[in-house]
Amino acid sequence: MKASVFIAMSLDGFIARPNGELDWLDAANAKVSKDEDFGYHAFIKTVDVLVMGRKTYEYVLTCDEWPYKDVPVIVLSRQPITFPANLPKTITCSSEEPPDLCNRLSQEGIQHIYVDGGITIQRFLAHGLINNLTITLIPTILGEGTPLFGSVPQDILLQCLSSYTFKSGFTQIKYTVLTEDI
Amino acid sequence: MKASVFIAMSLDGFIARPNGELDWLDAANAKVSKDEDFGYHAFIKTVDVLVMGRKTYEYVLTCDEWPYKDVPVIVLSRQPITFPANLPKTITCSSEEPPDLCNRLSQEGIQHIYVDGGITIQRFLAHGLINNLTITLIPTILGEGTPLFGSVPQDILLQCLSSYTFKSGFTQIKYTVLTEDI
Repeated sequence: MKASVFIAMSLDGFIARPNGELDWLDAANAKVSKDEDFGYHAFIKTVDVLVMGRKTYEYVLTCDEWPYKDVPVIVLSRQPITFPANLPKTITCSSEEPPDLCNRLSQEGIQHIYVDGGITIQRFLAHGLINNLTITLIPTILGEGTPLFGSVPQDILLQCLSSYTFKSGFTQIKYTVLTEDI
Repeated sequence: MKASVFIAMSLDGFIARPNGELDWLDAANAKVSKDEDFGYHAFIKTVDVLVMGRKTYEYVLTCDEWPYKDVPVIVLSRQPITFPANLPKTITCSSEEPPDLCNRLSQEGIQHIYVDGGITIQRFLAHGLINNLTITLIPTILGEGTPLFGSVPQDILLQCLSSYTFKSGFTQIKYTVLTEDI
């Protein structure tokens, strides 16, 4: 089973302001053609299960509509979550640790999970459970916020597969994690 | 007068480990052809004055030889520094604040300064005194260390000029600072 991250971060490594606000990202996106999705739709088509943290779930709930349609979503949460009735029935929650969750999903035949949310990504990375990272660097320095990366048990070495700067100035870099170094 | 940053950072935004060690950068560089300098020599030829912090100066002193030859260097330090006799006479120190230093150098006819060292870069950025950033992203996640960027009075918006991934997997991104947004 493969686990991927697909996320935008500021040049100084933040995915949100300290209070979780994404206004800076919305402002950057406002200058982008609506046809440009930075490869997101092609990516999400390859995803069997989206695993996100509770904070990300709560943020997504504030959006106008649930953006993941019928993609199965697992929300990691220590406490059970009661999902609103208007959400797809493909959403579940789990308190499993990342290795246990990956083992279970792999045994269920899942081939590709998309891991989202700062703390969740950090937990999976720290366990050596991420295979691919697609990072879209937004040309903004925020100075403070929620960092994408956190502490790791040891250096994580990556292989850069490609980089591309869009007209918007967003630079997307694709990495694989060199698991032999973990 | 133009002020540039030309620096390598880990994907998670660090320029050194917590103790200042660059072993991770040396390890990454060890895999690189010796002919590949990532544009550094072309860049340094355009520099009139290199401005660095005291910590960077002290680190450079530990290297086998002074790498900047006759490029004039100003070391920012609150305390006067006695420079070793074997260093070029083009090294001076200054306790000026970044805006005062930039005003003085500009009046002296200096056209291009290279600003180096984490804290020094952060001070110049916070004052809106940096025009260009060339960031070479090393495909390594360190988890902790000395961050390139620090807090800023408000968002700094950048324009991406180019990106390029070298065979080594280092991705170099060139930005200009959109000063009208500061």
